[in-house]
Amino acid sequence: MSLTKKAEVYAPALTPFNADLSVNQNAFIDFCQWLVSQGAGLAVFGTNSEACSLSLREKMGLLDALVEAGIGADKLLPGVGLCALPETIELSKKAVELGCAGTLVLPPYYFKPASDDGLFAYYSEIIQAVGSEDLRLYLYHIPQFTGVPITQGLIERLIKAYPDTVVGIKDSSGDWTNTERMLRELPGFKIFPASEALLEKALPLGAAGCISATANVQPHTIVSAIENWGTDQFAALQSDAKAVRALFQALPMIPALKYVVAEQMGDQAWRNVRPPLAKAAVDWGQKLLSDLAEQRFSMVQ
Amino acid sequence: MSLTKKAEVYAPALTPFNADLSVNQNAFIDFCQWLVSQGAGLAVFGTNSEACSLSLREKMGLLDALVEAGIGADKLLPGVGLCALPETIELSKKAVELGCAGTLVLPPYYFKPASDDGLFAYYSEIIQAVGSEDLRLYLYHIPQFTGVPITQGLIERLIKAYPDTVVGIKDSSGDWTNTERMLRELPGFKIFPASEALLEKALPLGAAGCISATANVQPHTIVSAIENWGTDQFAALQSDAKAVRALFQALPMIPALKYVVAEQMGDQAWRNVRPPLAKAAVDWGQKLLSDLAEQRFSMVQ
Repeated sequence: MSLTKKAEVYAPALTPFNADLSVNQNAFIDFCQWLVSQGAGLAVFGTNSEACSLSLREKMGLLDALVEAGIGADKLLPGVGLCALPETIELSKKAVELGCAGTLVLPPYYFKPASDDGLFAYYSEIIQAVGSEDLRLYLYHIPQFTGVPITQGLIERLIKAYPDTVVGIKDSSGDWTNTERMLRELPGFKIFPASEALLEKALPLGAAGCISATANVQPHTIVSAIENWGTDQFAALQSDAKAVRALFQALPMIPALKYVVAEQMGDQAWRNVRPPLAKAAVDWGQKLLSDLAEQRFSMVQ
Repeated sequence: MSLTKKAEVYAPALTPFNADLSVNQNAFIDFCQWLVSQGAGLAVFGTNSEACSLSLREKMGLLDALVEAGIGADKLLPGVGLCALPETIELSKKAVELGCAGTLVLPPYYFKPASDDGLFAYYSEIIQAVGSEDLRLYLYHIPQFTGVPITQGLIERLIKAYPDTVVGIKDSSGDWTNTERMLRELPGFKIFPASEALLEKALPLGAAGCISATANVQPHTIVSAIENWGTDQFAALQSDAKAVRALFQALPMIPALKYVVAEQMGDQAWRNVRPPLAKAAVDWGQKLLSDLAEQRFSMVQ
């Protein structure tokens, strides 16, 4: 059972905005502290954090603020991948200086198709420019948004060239065939599926845990499921988590998560999103709340 | 013939990199000055400028450097569209402060699909935050890279809301049906096809000119073609321009352009590109040079 004891849950922490769309730093820190208190790590600046809608300066400032607020850097797995190498390098260096557990790195997502040679060169430049033995780089495979898949061939080249640095991947493709193949063929590589609904299939194959959007609202359930894997409790916990996940997955994920957090935190400003996203409509937001109530869902444990 | 007299050619100016992949600012200024001397305007920070591989800081610095070097801001149509609103706003403000002719604004290109409502809100936020009557915003439609098309419905909403600000579009879709429909249905809107090969069809319908990758290497031919539209000279000039364009279009465009500029400028460092792009291979680069020689092509007029 050693693998499951090490399995981890990361939340791509939602980013709260004020009415003028500036980041509400205090609300962000409070939310991140709550996530950690529930047993989750913080994959800040993930897709569901609206990372690509945040400026580099905002991200640099928020990382500092989290650590200054006393959140252990070992809990932080920030997304640092941007299209421009100098910016990805700058944010990566900051993460390493702060002692973050690792970095989650999108491929550059403008030029399509990108070649494996070009992507290998991109990741190599990051690793060489950061130049630190402390860098733990996780690849971020989310082709539905990037249009730039991370192939297994590329992964194998990177592991061979940088075995102590390129240590894992988040697979947000939603393609279990891809996740399963990596789990079977890349032993020792830390593979995170992007949904708690896959834990029952992924944990037996040695998955590193999960990095899931809905870890923003049910971190404790997911952590408990992992802790109870192999026991009689697992099936019920996984079933609960999947039922909640399914409700969110049928909706625009980020506005839906923010609608629920706003309700549970008693702060309607949590509903704000940056364009091009649009806030949840009240009709489906309220329907979601009542569906969740039927599941006896509560963020407050 | 009044429309054609106003038609303009913009080059999405290539960005030269040193061996360490830093921007070679002096080479960039020299190249931009040459383009202007050939009659082209400068759509700096376009796709073919590898804009998305440049940091915000680099772009801010290069804009200042161009103006300080004496290039008229009225020649500048910088690409300013980034995924994060605060960064797009910052670069837009800089362009307006410098007196640039306009800004070319990609839609945010991470979240897909984006709704017209979300994109309308995105462009509205930019316009309101810049808050200047001097802003002339050109939309940038290049769905093969962004994954986020700019629909005619969105364009019409933006024109209606901001008639003095949202003044045109670059259509890089390569879909003539789309360009033609806009030309016919949006009179007065400044529509730039992304290829000189379309001039013969687009000029009669009132196109504003073109913003073309290959204006980096044959600005004078394209400018001459436009100047001679309606004369006996046009057909031959357009034919020459199309033949050269076709050679580049069959290859990875940016590395091909840089290979030729390196040769013509006598500076092999011009071949450098930032990952994820890869330099031209010498075999096809040399083949391109000999094919161009057969066309009696020369950048030096």
